[in-house]
Amino acid sequence: MDPTSELLSELRTELRGTTQLDEIRSLLAWDQQTMLATRGHQRRAEQLALLSAIHHERFASKKVGDLLSELSQRSELDEMQQTGIQLLLKDWRRAACVPAELVERLARLQGQGHMAWMEARAARDFRVFAPVLQQLVDATIERAHALEPGAPVYDVLVDDFEPGMSTERLTDLFRRLRAGLLPLLDAISGATPMPRLEGTFPRDQQMSWCLELASAMGFATDSGRVDLATHPFTTRLGPTDIRITTYLNERNPMHALGATLHETGHALYEQGLPSHLEGTGVEQFASMGLHESQSRFWENTIGRSAPFFRWLAPRFAQHFGAVAPDANTWYRAANRVERGTNRVLADEVTYNLHVIVRFELERALFAGEIQVPDLRDAWAEAYRRDLTAPQDDVEGVLQDIHWSGAAFGYFPTYTLGNLYSAALGRKMQQELPVWELVERGEFAPILGWLRERVHQHGRRWPSEELVRRVTGESDVVEDLVSYLWARHGALHGVTRA
Amino acid sequence: MDPTSELLSELRTELRGTTQLDEIRSLLAWDQQTMLATRGHQRRAEQLALLSAIHHERFASKKVGDLLSELSQRSELDEMQQTGIQLLLKDWRRAACVPAELVERLARLQGQGHMAWMEARAARDFRVFAPVLQQLVDATIERAHALEPGAPVYDVLVDDFEPGMSTERLTDLFRRLRAGLLPLLDAISGATPMPRLEGTFPRDQQMSWCLELASAMGFATDSGRVDLATHPFTTRLGPTDIRITTYLNERNPMHALGATLHETGHALYEQGLPSHLEGTGVEQFASMGLHESQSRFWENTIGRSAPFFRWLAPRFAQHFGAVAPDANTWYRAANRVERGTNRVLADEVTYNLHVIVRFELERALFAGEIQVPDLRDAWAEAYRRDLTAPQDDVEGVLQDIHWSGAAFGYFPTYTLGNLYSAALGRKMQQELPVWELVERGEFAPILGWLRERVHQHGRRWPSEELVRRVTGESDVVEDLVSYLWARHGALHGVTRA
Repeated sequence: MDPTSELLSELRTELRGTTQLDEIRSLLAWDQQTMLATRGHQRRAEQLALLSAIHHERFASKKVGDLLSELSQRSELDEMQQTGIQLLLKDWRRAACVPAELVERLARLQGQGHMAWMEARAARDFRVFAPVLQQLVDATIERAHALEPGAPVYDVLVDDFEPGMSTERLTDLFRRLRAGLLPLLDAISGATPMPRLEGTFPRDQQMSWCLELASAMGFATDSGRVDLATHPFTTRLGPTDIRITTYLNERNPMHALGATLHETGHALYEQGLPSHLEGTGVEQFASMGLHESQSRFWENTIGRSAPFFRWLAPRFAQHFGAVAPDANTWYRAANRVERGTNRVLADEVTYNLHVIVRFELERALFAGEIQVPDLRDAWAEAYRRDLTAPQDDVEGVLQDIHWSGAAFGYFPTYTLGNLYSAALGRKMQQELPVWELVERGEFAPILGWLRERVHQHGRRWPSEELVRRVTGESDVVEDLVSYLWARHGALHGVTRA
Repeated sequence: MDPTSELLSELRTELRGTTQLDEIRSLLAWDQQTMLATRGHQRRAEQLALLSAIHHERFASKKVGDLLSELSQRSELDEMQQTGIQLLLKDWRRAACVPAELVERLARLQGQGHMAWMEARAARDFRVFAPVLQQLVDATIERAHALEPGAPVYDVLVDDFEPGMSTERLTDLFRRLRAGLLPLLDAISGATPMPRLEGTFPRDQQMSWCLELASAMGFATDSGRVDLATHPFTTRLGPTDIRITTYLNERNPMHALGATLHETGHALYEQGLPSHLEGTGVEQFASMGLHESQSRFWENTIGRSAPFFRWLAPRFAQHFGAVAPDANTWYRAANRVERGTNRVLADEVTYNLHVIVRFELERALFAGEIQVPDLRDAWAEAYRRDLTAPQDDVEGVLQDIHWSGAAFGYFPTYTLGNLYSAALGRKMQQELPVWELVERGEFAPILGWLRERVHQHGRRWPSEELVRRVTGESDVVEDLVSYLWARHGALHGVTRA
């Protein structure tokens, strides 16, 4: 082997170990949320902390850093190899450049933050959470300064979840999106009311129906599992071990449907990543936003469409008999739009307004324009403006878990997912007879298209660039707004001005 | 803190890490056998190997060795602390004194051994397995020499699983046990035939019945789980996370009963170990034999007794209705005795003869009295003598997985478990109204007795000494033989000469 190949091979070996430690950590977390008995949780937290420490020790090591900086100077690498090394160098700096004391302090604060958030929710009072939140914000600012001295803090935070994205770009996208969503919302508010599903749908049958659905979408059941969790998630325990969890509500199968479509979307992306490139740095998912685009494409674009329910309804009826809704009832029930207070329960139109509220608050907070104690009122005010004012703090500023774990800068990726999904969906419809395929339950060509255009590229390009390469120069905001107008305008008999 | 306390505290921190790495490894193995999808297995094997390497690196480190040898010279330690340090020093030497090359070679050979064993079983031909078995034997001998130069190899192997036990002692115990068992077996062979259970017992109901049973025995369901596995096992993922697996046969609930009693016995021992002593070296289980004594006590002494079935039968009938056997049918079906070819399926009388065959072969093999290629015929010959000659190699020398994984010296612990169990059972009956308690389903005093006499002492004493401390000077062989005569003699209307 030539010296460069030797360095690459040494690097691959190191990264194979750290990747597997990550997968093991994911198994511990999966088990924690699906299997673990009540009294096992404390020890599990310690086991997770131990693994994180070992992972950090190995990945943020001088050895890995030296290999990467050595390789970054080799001109004989091809373009993809160079990209991978640059991505890994950035990962390494993010891991190695934060002082150990700060890493530990942040981890401790996250634990305290979660507890304080729970207590505050029990007391329905943001003030119980605010002091720890202040410490979390301060430590997060410290970390951002350590990572990129001089850079605007919120840019650094966003980059954790959405590499290549900036506060300025988000501000522009979200301002225009809000301007596009509000007229649609006004136009359909108070128009035709949508039904709710009613009946009893036994849990066991829902579970086997979920499995069938995931499988029909293309989820490889020999390379993963479907289980139950209170808060559904998807996790990667290995290239051929991707696990979905879903959530069941005996009175309303819409919950299981939404969760299964969403999580299977994530899982299909994971199963489609280029695992043959393991250790190059390119094999990973591109960003949380792109991940979310895959889940939301299946959940919303496909999973709330009329052709989908025409395919689904008779199959669902085979499981549940007379209580099963007809296709039209399903379709209309799946597309209720309401100005509510809750992000997680929101429909696909208002969802983005919930996200924009959070983005604006986070942006202002880290720009020093507002302070932690102001968040409650600023939240209520923004909701009053665009959605519905919350009745109390649990309905308002305490509703999401994210801030208690210092996941600042994460919220925007939800809406980026919708934007990317809309652009990809538009392009796909130009190249595939999407709705005919969906109505026949032929999901393979759709998945094939996503695999080829999106999944197989890993994180070779920043997500926005990847989407642009697939869809051509276009306005993702306009893509999303017209997609929503087309579906919801038609359902309510209104047209865009 | 004084210097000794500081050393102890440093040691505890190190061991906390290695213990937790062990627990994490157990989670990976548990998941592998209960949850993992087909295509996840290859990666899982790599993850397990990685964890083993990290565990070895940390436990067999110079740091741990130095701490232990330093502490072993401190006179201010109390007796239990000294015991713990000696036990840990021995563990450390077993981990650190085998050359890394040999550890890797053995691990690789175990993988190959398992494959060759599977292939040999498919071909029903021992000769397919023999060459790898030879390499496994050679590497095992090499390892024994590295661990204890000059010591008899089989003594070193037995000590892996049963600290304090010797080949000489085993030879004496097993010779006398065989002499005690054969007359009983001759006396009851061909006497009253015992019934078989018949019916259909739905799997879901069997599973909830197993959970109820484990719970009734005292298994803390908030500190563990019960799941299904092809080969039932119990595993420790943490002091308050002990998991049982069981096995169901829809046509015969005896399988689920036996597996659940057996594994719950193991789990109760694990749940009763002195976890407050974590890091002292004393908190662990005493030996595989003692572990087995706990599973077999519940499975056989309690779980095949007439009072147990008088308690069980009506409860079982609540789950299964008319198909449920009456107490007497259960009791008699649970006590069929047959000279068979299969250890795992054997009854409690012949079981020990199966073990003795394996012990004699292993002992002779490592004493150089027979060679690997002789094992097939020697096996058949021993079975012809005491049990039933096998039809082919799968029924014979290829029936157990142990040798394919180099677990030489493990088999004797099964019978040691029966011996310890008999001695403990005799003593318990002197101190508790065992059969009245069992008939009323009051298992708590029985578990309490085991907790106090056995579980809470961890591995403070070698198992034989622990049993002697509880039961007084007695002959464990006589304890087991009279226990078996009492039950099976009565069932067949024969008395001991």
